[in-house]
Amino acid sequence: MANQPISEPAQKFGERVRARRHELGLSQEQLADKAGLHWTFVGQVERGRRNISLHNLLKLATGLEIDPAELVRGLRRPTG
Amino acid sequence: MANQPISEPAQKFGERVRARRHELGLSQEQLADKAGLHWTFVGQVERGRRNISLHNLLKLATGLEIDPAELVRGLRRPTG
Repeated sequence: MANQPISEPAQKFGERVRARRHELGLSQEQLADKAGLHWTFVGQVERGRRNISLHNLLKLATGLEIDPAELVRGLRRPTG
Repeated sequence: MANQPISEPAQKFGERVRARRHELGLSQEQLADKAGLHWTFVGQVERGRRNISLHNLLKLATGLEIDPAELVRGLRRPTG
């Protein structure tokens, strides 16, 4: 399905991004601007549709004003 | 240069991978086997030559028997 998360860790990662964005009271576009990313990319990440790269993970963490460790703590690699 | 790290965070990430691999007394091939990755990829990551994806980061953390948070804590996005 086109809107299914690509994996459980990608889904959890996206949920953390969205939760923190809401904490900050930011729209996807505002977060994208802060992070130096495109807003459609932010939306895809939040829906667990992206296997995000290290550099983009660090950009997101900057935009979210958190340590990147918070976004990946406890995540397990995809099964299967 | 072909052997230069692609960025400061990629370099630091790679140094952490290598340090933890040495702690465990593993060769690159042994870590690659544990992580389900190719040994040449592990070597590239350790030299800071890869902008690693979330899924491969999680595989590496599993092979290194650490939380993925340890590999990215405090890293800053590339400048410029």
